[in-house]
Amino acid sequence: MAVQTVATTSNSTVDLGPAAALSCRECGHRVPLGPVFACEECFGPLEIAYDFSAYDTEELRARIEAGPANIWRYAPLLPVPADVAEKPNINPGWTKLVKADNLAGELGVTGGLYIKDDSGNPTHSFKDRVVAQALEAARAFGFTTLSCSSTGNLAGAVGAAAARAGFRSCVFIPHDLEQGKVVMAAVYGGELVGIQGNYDDVNRFCSELIGDPAGEGWGFVNVNLRPYYAEGSKTLAYEICEQLGWRLPDQIVVPIASGSQLTKIDKGLQELIKLGLVEDRPYKIFGAQAEGCSPVSAAFKAGHDVVRPQKPNTIAKSLAIGNPADGPYVLDIARRTGGAVEDVTDPEVVDAIKLLARTEGIFAETAGGVTVGVTRKLIENGVLDPALTTVVLNTGDGLKTLDAVAGTGLTATIRPNLESFREAGLA
Amino acid sequence: MAVQTVATTSNSTVDLGPAAALSCRECGHRVPLGPVFACEECFGPLEIAYDFSAYDTEELRARIEAGPANIWRYAPLLPVPADVAEKPNINPGWTKLVKADNLAGELGVTGGLYIKDDSGNPTHSFKDRVVAQALEAARAFGFTTLSCSSTGNLAGAVGAAAARAGFRSCVFIPHDLEQGKVVMAAVYGGELVGIQGNYDDVNRFCSELIGDPAGEGWGFVNVNLRPYYAEGSKTLAYEICEQLGWRLPDQIVVPIASGSQLTKIDKGLQELIKLGLVEDRPYKIFGAQAEGCSPVSAAFKAGHDVVRPQKPNTIAKSLAIGNPADGPYVLDIARRTGGAVEDVTDPEVVDAIKLLARTEGIFAETAGGVTVGVTRKLIENGVLDPALTTVVLNTGDGLKTLDAVAGTGLTATIRPNLESFREAGLA
Repeated sequence: MAVQTVATTSNSTVDLGPAAALSCRECGHRVPLGPVFACEECFGPLEIAYDFSAYDTEELRARIEAGPANIWRYAPLLPVPADVAEKPNINPGWTKLVKADNLAGELGVTGGLYIKDDSGNPTHSFKDRVVAQALEAARAFGFTTLSCSSTGNLAGAVGAAAARAGFRSCVFIPHDLEQGKVVMAAVYGGELVGIQGNYDDVNRFCSELIGDPAGEGWGFVNVNLRPYYAEGSKTLAYEICEQLGWRLPDQIVVPIASGSQLTKIDKGLQELIKLGLVEDRPYKIFGAQAEGCSPVSAAFKAGHDVVRPQKPNTIAKSLAIGNPADGPYVLDIARRTGGAVEDVTDPEVVDAIKLLARTEGIFAETAGGVTVGVTRKLIENGVLDPALTTVVLNTGDGLKTLDAVAGTGLTATIRPNLESFREAGLA
Repeated sequence: MAVQTVATTSNSTVDLGPAAALSCRECGHRVPLGPVFACEECFGPLEIAYDFSAYDTEELRARIEAGPANIWRYAPLLPVPADVAEKPNINPGWTKLVKADNLAGELGVTGGLYIKDDSGNPTHSFKDRVVAQALEAARAFGFTTLSCSSTGNLAGAVGAAAARAGFRSCVFIPHDLEQGKVVMAAVYGGELVGIQGNYDDVNRFCSELIGDPAGEGWGFVNVNLRPYYAEGSKTLAYEICEQLGWRLPDQIVVPIASGSQLTKIDKGLQELIKLGLVEDRPYKIFGAQAEGCSPVSAAFKAGHDVVRPQKPNTIAKSLAIGNPADGPYVLDIARRTGGAVEDVTDPEVVDAIKLLARTEGIFAETAGGVTVGVTRKLIENGVLDPALTTVVLNTGDGLKTLDAVAGTGLTATIRPNLESFREAGLA
């Protein structure tokens, strides 16, 4: 694989706010900000290193609270320029934190149960958060094409963001994707290229393209812009705490695909503690997978530190990454915080989608069925404490995975008169 | 038709905030607040009459600005109790007002073009605004079942709101509705009853049920709760002005189904002027229809004051009301404000959906294609002034009308290698 590990774009004019450098998660080696994602020393993943030293806690809090109703209220804590809110972007975030009292009643949670409902984002999934971030990095590095490999949510998020920001977009998908998903991605008018092969072939091709002159000027949001992209997930942690009144939740249930989101939520919570924006108290992070793609859950239960890849087979396609890059970090966080990683079967996912819709009027994607289903299972098994404040993530929208609940239908069929209405027992 | 015109529920304990009474739009006859919708004197439509006399302008503005990021920030101007934000509801509104500079460039608008994007609501259409309102009225009147007739968006909005608020829901739809729409409505777990007949049969049956003892305790959001329900559309006017910095837009383009939304937006703008929250300046309201269901546009162009019913035949199904109840009021408002009513063909609707997606990353329902298409046509015809500030409504989500753009697809198909990539001219 031709992996570009050194920036080809000079960063002398790069303004990404408090982002100071890229730092290797494994060996700590630092490099200047640039479109790179792997350490040149040890091939470990690069992360953003910040300089937050100038912030006064209460000034920062006031600045955030006076900010826009989207992720850019947290611009002082993200790798974006200070005037980011003025630039064309899709401005995701500040989605609802729904107090789920009906669901709490059904699950026996007494300490307060909340759904962080990211279906409220512009293209109705949490991917808007990370893509908005990658877009700002692409702008800073002078890229003109925004790209990704995708099988669903990411394609729409990239297409929409690129359209709004005036970037060309070129999204690569397996050529035989369902027609509905193709339409959702194609409507934004960018290039949508079908690759004759499976998702692994698509990814392999994208890595090749990044290393080739043909890929010059291309920002692949989840490859060469990954360090910036991934930071978008921190905003979930920021929003949850601010919406709870600048307070850490006791327990948080997060879906696991690559595992990146969970690790960044932990990073976000740690930053809020260090900045003094929340009181330093223990919190537990729980990871949720579908049984048909549960490599991290399997490793957690077996007490392993490494994750053995699986071949995914689940309806929760947005979580179907069989070899999750951040799996070991997830295991570490779940163990360190006293959390756990659990999985549920596909029928349990469908049940949980219906349970959430029936109790709270929230129609979740399969990934939301996974987190709600895992929450129920963890309570039943005595692992999650129902007396503590618990936040469950819904990262996508049920309209995008209608097939999962296709069995749902009419409860009665009647003739248009009162007699038929009474016969059906509806009165 | 058995129409209940007098309240059967005592309103001695009804607290609906500033709502003082129901008043007939035609003859001015007033009746106490109750679940009635037609004047007992002249059968004209009943509207909410308010008492806003106690408000100090700047205190009111400050109270609104300190309110929640949803429609309840305007509770002092709506028929809801002061503590409405504490009650379980789906809390719609405060959706994005997107400055659409790319679209403005394509359409030649120089005075500022904005999309009010109501796809950001909980069930992704503006119907959440009106249902949230009807739910509060249902609660005040002691109803326990929330109901409606629907062919789409409304069913989901009622199902979700009822679920969250702990109401029983019973939604009536034509029995042969497309499976996708049935699933979207059924997932919330309420009663979903298919009526053997067309949408007119469904409506006729609902009116029968309201007049029957079997319908006791049932709030039909768009029938016996209609005066309250309709007020939800005022919040679009409030939000647009507040998001413009407490300023009236010069021009606003609104879709027409029953016409209720357009009349309530006008009412909302007038209230803001009277309350001193915005400067009193001229504004123009434009109505948008699909050619396949354009009774109001036809009447406007013919110079008529009444609307001749049509049999709808358009892809813009959420606007397909052939005999719009508020048609005459819409004609009056368009003429009084110096606006117009225009229509576009189904292919123009599809083009406009793609134009909005390509320029702004917003994937609109067909109704949004109608407003954007009509905006373009009005500019081309010299009716809408491109030098003035213009707001265009998108009232729904493209994910719900995927069929309209089903022709959209892959721009290329390649093998997973660089040679094939170059051959396709993508480099």
